[in-house]
Amino acid sequence: MPNANAATSAAPLDSLADRYRATRTLTSGLLDQLSEADATLQSMEDASPAKWHLGHTNWFFETFLLRDHKPGYELYDERWPFVFNSYYEAEGVRIARFSRGMLSRPTVEQIGEWREVIDEAMSSMLDDPRFAPLIELGIAHEQQHQELLLTDIKHALFRNPLAPAMYENAPSRVAPPQARDWHQHPGGIALIGHDGANMDGDFAYDNEGPQHQVLLTPFALAPNLVTNAEWQQFVDDGGYANPLLWLSDGWAWVNREKIAAPLYWYEDEQFTHTGWTKRDPNAPVTHISYFEADAFATWAGQRLPTEFEWEAAAQSSDPASGNQLDGAHAPLPLGGSGLFGDCWQFTRSAYGPYPRFSCANGAIGEYNGKFMSGQFVLRGASCATPRGHSRSTYRNFFYPHQRWQFTGLRLAKDI
Amino acid sequence: MPNANAATSAAPLDSLADRYRATRTLTSGLLDQLSEADATLQSMEDASPAKWHLGHTNWFFETFLLRDHKPGYELYDERWPFVFNSYYEAEGVRIARFSRGMLSRPTVEQIGEWREVIDEAMSSMLDDPRFAPLIELGIAHEQQHQELLLTDIKHALFRNPLAPAMYENAPSRVAPPQARDWHQHPGGIALIGHDGANMDGDFAYDNEGPQHQVLLTPFALAPNLVTNAEWQQFVDDGGYANPLLWLSDGWAWVNREKIAAPLYWYEDEQFTHTGWTKRDPNAPVTHISYFEADAFATWAGQRLPTEFEWEAAAQSSDPASGNQLDGAHAPLPLGGSGLFGDCWQFTRSAYGPYPRFSCANGAIGEYNGKFMSGQFVLRGASCATPRGHSRSTYRNFFYPHQRWQFTGLRLAKDI
Amino acid sequence: MPNANAATSAAPLDSLADRYRATRTLTSGLLDQLSEADATLQSMEDASPAKWHLGHTNWFFETFLLRDHKPGYELYDERWPFVFNSYYEAEGVRIARFSRGMLSRPTVEQIGEWREVIDEAMSSMLDDPRFAPLIELGIAHEQQHQELLLTDIKHALFRNPLAPAMYENAPSRVAPPQARDWHQHPGGIALIGHDGANMDGDFAYDNEGPQHQVLLTPFALAPNLVTNAEWQQFVDDGGYANPLLWLSDGWAWVNREKIAAPLYWYEDEQFTHTGWTKRDPNAPVTHISYFEADAFATWAGQRLPTEFEWEAAAQSSDPASGNQLDGAHAPLPLGGSGLFGDCWQFTRSAYGPYPRFSCANGAIGEYNGKFMSGQFVLRGASCATPRGHSRSTYRNFFYPHQRWQFTGLRLAKDI
Amino acid sequence: MPNANAATSAAPLDSLADRYRATRTLTSGLLDQLSEADATLQSMEDASPAKWHLGHTNWFFETFLLRDHKPGYELYDERWPFVFNSYYEAEGVRIARFSRGMLSRPTVEQIGEWREVIDEAMSSMLDDPRFAPLIELGIAHEQQHQELLLTDIKHALFRNPLAPAMYENAPSRVAPPQARDWHQHPGGIALIGHDGANMDGDFAYDNEGPQHQVLLTPFALAPNLVTNAEWQQFVDDGGYANPLLWLSDGWAWVNREKIAAPLYWYEDEQFTHTGWTKRDPNAPVTHISYFEADAFATWAGQRLPTEFEWEAAAQSSDPASGNQLDGAHAPLPLGGSGLFGDCWQFTRSAYGPYPRFSCANGAIGEYNGKFMSGQFVLRGASCATPRGHSRSTYRNFFYPHQRWQFTGLRLAKDI
Repeated sequence: MPNANAATSAAPLDSLADRYRATRTLTSGLLDQLSEADATLQSMEDASPAKWHLGHTNWFFETFLLRDHKPGYELYDERWPFVFNSYYEAEGVRIARFSRGMLSRPTVEQIGEWREVIDEAMSSMLDDPRFAPLIELGIAHEQQHQELLLTDIKHALFRNPLAPAMYENAPSRVAPPQARDWHQHPGGIALIGHDGANMDGDFAYDNEGPQHQVLLTPFALAPNLVTNAEWQQFVDDGGYANPLLWLSDGWAWVNREKIAAPLYWYEDEQFTHTGWTKRDPNAPVTHISYFEADAFATWAGQRLPTEFEWEAAAQSSDPASGNQLDGAHAPLPLGGSGLFGDCWQFTRSAYGPYPRFSCANGAIGEYNGKFMSGQFVLRGASCATPRGHSRSTYRNFFYPHQRWQFTGLRLAKDI
Repeated sequence: MPNANAATSAAPLDSLADRYRATRTLTSGLLDQLSEADATLQSMEDASPAKWHLGHTNWFFETFLLRDHKPGYELYDERWPFVFNSYYEAEGVRIARFSRGMLSRPTVEQIGEWREVIDEAMSSMLDDPRFAPLIELGIAHEQQHQELLLTDIKHALFRNPLAPAMYENAPSRVAPPQARDWHQHPGGIALIGHDGANMDGDFAYDNEGPQHQVLLTPFALAPNLVTNAEWQQFVDDGGYANPLLWLSDGWAWVNREKIAAPLYWYEDEQFTHTGWTKRDPNAPVTHISYFEADAFATWAGQRLPTEFEWEAAAQSSDPASGNQLDGAHAPLPLGGSGLFGDCWQFTRSAYGPYPRFSCANGAIGEYNGKFMSGQFVLRGASCATPRGHSRSTYRNFFYPHQRWQFTGLRLAKDI
Repeated sequence: MPNANAATSAAPLDSLADRYRATRTLTSGLLDQLSEADATLQSMEDASPAKWHLGHTNWFFETFLLRDHKPGYELYDERWPFVFNSYYEAEGVRIARFSRGMLSRPTVEQIGEWREVIDEAMSSMLDDPRFAPLIELGIAHEQQHQELLLTDIKHALFRNPLAPAMYENAPSRVAPPQARDWHQHPGGIALIGHDGANMDGDFAYDNEGPQHQVLLTPFALAPNLVTNAEWQQFVDDGGYANPLLWLSDGWAWVNREKIAAPLYWYEDEQFTHTGWTKRDPNAPVTHISYFEADAFATWAGQRLPTEFEWEAAAQSSDPASGNQLDGAHAPLPLGGSGLFGDCWQFTRSAYGPYPRFSCANGAIGEYNGKFMSGQFVLRGASCATPRGHSRSTYRNFFYPHQRWQFTGLRLAKDI
Repeated sequence: MPNANAATSAAPLDSLADRYRATRTLTSGLLDQLSEADATLQSMEDASPAKWHLGHTNWFFETFLLRDHKPGYELYDERWPFVFNSYYEAEGVRIARFSRGMLSRPTVEQIGEWREVIDEAMSSMLDDPRFAPLIELGIAHEQQHQELLLTDIKHALFRNPLAPAMYENAPSRVAPPQARDWHQHPGGIALIGHDGANMDGDFAYDNEGPQHQVLLTPFALAPNLVTNAEWQQFVDDGGYANPLLWLSDGWAWVNREKIAAPLYWYEDEQFTHTGWTKRDPNAPVTHISYFEADAFATWAGQRLPTEFEWEAAAQSSDPASGNQLDGAHAPLPLGGSGLFGDCWQFTRSAYGPYPRFSCANGAIGEYNGKFMSGQFVLRGASCATPRGHSRSTYRNFFYPHQRWQFTGLRLAKDI
């Protein structure tokens, strides 16, 4: 979702053009791993076809850069904005009940041709500083969709009983996490959020600001992510059958959906981008919902951190560290030891506006604050997050029942 | 659905082999009109992907001929029966919520290779009279799926706002139907249904028998199908807004689904296998539900025929006449003048068992009578029915709200 | 539902007035067994509050007799037709989502006062032969609602964990059914349906005519209803878990609704109008759906009769015999030996129009044929049917999943 | 919901016994306004019958005081805890699908007798300081249910097209709110939440603590609640049709539920406990959802306050001021000028745990934190809140689509 704003960017312009091209290339590369039919699959409402991600990210540049700012630019195909715009209202009987999963056409190749046309048209704008903020936004937007593409196709392949793989070789096994000290924090006033003007001109979404002070009480953050082995203990201890561990809505969800394990678990295996594989006990648990994360923390006698605690602890970490996405053509590794990478980490903070937050103007700003009800904030970055996309102030958010993303947890406690 | 039995067949054996090959070729030919992604689409629960039809019809021969009767035959792929069998119960978490629309793999080409293996293995059985009844059944089964493939893909392409076409050239326009006399029938005892042993050995499904006597009162059957122009009058007269014309369940359906026209109508156009085209007023109306057919008949001051009346009137007609499917590579024409072809015709007869009907034994027989609740019988044949598949005793059946088949109506009245 | 017409009635007029008064008294008597709150309960969409039945049957006479035919009559309360008419369309926001279960007011006493006013106004019309057909219809309509009142309140009391009783004393136990010969029928042409003019002027609903000939094949009808003990064998034999016994829609229903026994069964008890009681093995099974009845018959190696077979067999039976409703103040007995009484018997006949059937004119006729899709015919009469209401031509009908009526089965077979 | 804990209470013990009796009397008094059938109505899942509230509040004292702490106490009726406990899991077929709306029995009178027994048994405990905290909790719990009883029965009466009234005389009209200055707050560290030990021993729920510091930025709070007249401007300006004003989930809700006005609005009238009345433009708007409150604030160019801002502003106000519930026998007035009374005020704060919050032990504590997902905090008190129940730290909470409570809004802005 492009909950993005046009933050100031002072990154070197040659680097912007380079990053534009690298991002575009990575998206196309992901499609190389998929057949035409794979790229058309939509397995549920929450997910979109890979092909749609390919087109939608292109629509973004065509619309907000070329259509809005390039004199004389004419749309490549006037009908395509309708199918590749993520937000629209029903427009009459003819297209009623359109779902993205029906896009057998245009083909991936046809969308690829469109992308080439856009890249060509964009080339003269990449060096113009007036457009840098919007281009930064377009890059960040496309990176978000790279991650969604990976999690959406994983879910679609999972629902095929033949369990096809996107990649051939499974990642290697992970060593047990080292016993390390918890991250201690003394509490006090912490500076939270992103302030474009004072942070080396890095790009940030509008929901990361304004920067503001938050009063923290002393706390500690676990040094490692919760692992599959630890989660198995929770399962074995009857965690999914004990209502005292669950939020009321979570307990209703567990019973309604007959949830008894993380998504993609089956016996001692796990479905991955390389198909069904034996589960690695030392790897971090992934594909859990907020409800599950909260129940686990309660069972463990701890709690989830707030997003402010997480951010305060992460300010000294390198957000480009850990297992994150480096390319299109290899399996996704797991098993890191830092605050970033592997999986997004649930916080107990509901997703809401920071003090004095206001939406950006115009079409881009339409979507900024509109998701601020009913969702929870996740922090960090996952193995499917393009490296360079995340930062300590980054706020990801999902509904408490959703779990098709690479979601995991890191415990916290009061000290 | 293979609601079929193993009726006796005395057709010449060379013809059986020929018909086997022709049927198999026609199925493959239909796939030639579709891309890999087209063939993977499933637009609703009632429909299946073209690719699935391709595999399922092959599964039928592999299972009931080769597996059951060919010594030493080994399954081509042990996992495929699961995905290409139309009836199965959930088998645990791993394949929970499988839907046929997730079959991006295997590819059409891979299924085609499987079909070649099956054809090769079948070749030695085609001349063996012991297997003729089952092979006849397999051919009939595959023909049914050819029609379903055409109606299913039509629905899927319709739900793409870009409205792709399966065929390039629209059929030519139709002349107005001629004014002709109604088919008069004096009533009395009619012989209804199929008796394999006494009907030249023609194949029939078990639900067409036993042959039995039915007492008819005098009636007349309209000489022509109801046309688009006549249906437009119904629409213009407020037919969809007048509860007095509708069955109670139909009125609930109209309001719940906001139905105001046949499926695929939009303004003065109609969606077809060649895309959106201007509607032909002289062509028969198609893609209506039983509820709509019944409401129209009430509005017209007539009624729908019973299936017995239709059959008695059709006994002297050639079931291979009219607009039916002759090949895979041309658009589907409409606008005939006989009892067969163009579209299936709703009768007011609920689908039930004939006197002394009983199911066939074994796996094939499992499905014979199990659909005998809540559905209505349609008679005739449509432009998508492979020519040679239908006969005067043939009983098609659908739920009263379904309308993605080529369904239309022919009025009847008491005399 | 008042699927009734204005058939000719030549019954003696004094008897008509007597029957009017007796029917009205019985309805009021049923309410005497219920508290104000009991009478307000609506346990599901299919059911209505007892209070509503009380008002609706009164509305019928006020509307179709007094309003339409009594000069100068003014409605008792102009707002009441809206809440006591069974069919209406939504009329704006104010009353959106009205359900009958919200009628805490008017009170039973207030409706009783209305009934007295109607009875007084009706008194001068009861002797006028012009109104006899409509009054007959009103009586039959009220009798239908007496049965519905009893089955609806049974369901509502069942859903209260405290299981309150409507009557105090449970019926006495039943002796095992005697071994008797099946009713044999030689087949041939049978005269089916009701012809008012030639049948001693008895009242009948329009769906029972026109009288017509039907060709039957030889068959036999079981002498006894299926009992609880026999049904227990079906349960013990895994009947509810064997898909081969079930219609396709029935199997889906069993799994979706987790059906494993007749409605109101729990362990070895059964919920009745006198509360939970030990189940009587010799009593006929009741509260089963068509799906269950059909599965049982398949399991037993028999079948359900057609409605024509049942009627042909029942023409020599006294429809006023057997366990039927004789008053408001005693429990409902079970365990008869004739074709009428105890429970309605499912037939395999879908509910449809007889040849040359057409609806009555006017508001009363609006509802005659509108239920002729998706339902099955039941014949006989139940312990909750007011004695005198049923006859051999009577066609009751319900959807195949419904089972809150006193529904049971009698097996049939071909001979 | 009893999201309560056992906070210390040092209130004078005679006052506790008095308050116990006054609370019990008020509950009974509310039932005096309702018929037996009124008291049985349940209009939706969110609501409960008045009779159930009567029993449930009694169950609380029987369970947590008498059963747990009174030696030798025996349950009044062993079956009643099941129906009057608000939380339980399904317990087998017999009571499957129990809904509270089926409780025609026991009667209000029978529950009243139970209450007398409980009051008698409680009398000796009211002066024992060991039980004071639990009794305080029981009183607070019963007061919460008094408010729910009033809003639940309002919804039930609304769904009756005859619109019965609970009270006879409508409240008098309200004068236009005075133009007053906004409440200015300079920001800085505020002390938020309740600390039993240091706050004169007042009772508080556990979710109001621990007391802690929060850093606020300067803000202002509107002096008046938004009125019906102001809301009408929002409606007239197309507020319900403009997606730019709404949260994403809110816009989906508006369209799915066809929302175009506050609950209980119809043309220029409003449904109240005294039936339909002309809407008072000067009265505060009530019965709006969070989605509507947020959209209104956006439309008005302002925002909703956080719960911390509201609390900081309200610390100097008398929580017992304003229009709150003083008795059972009079209509509910509206139109106050302070921070408390009239209606609960939505904040933009999601309902979550305060730092170092932990649940109470035992059965009472089971429910403390389990609602902390997906809901928003409301502050203040409404015309249906028993006077004395609320305080500045009180946290009410509901889902963002719910609006059958007396919910309204007070705008805030940054300064």
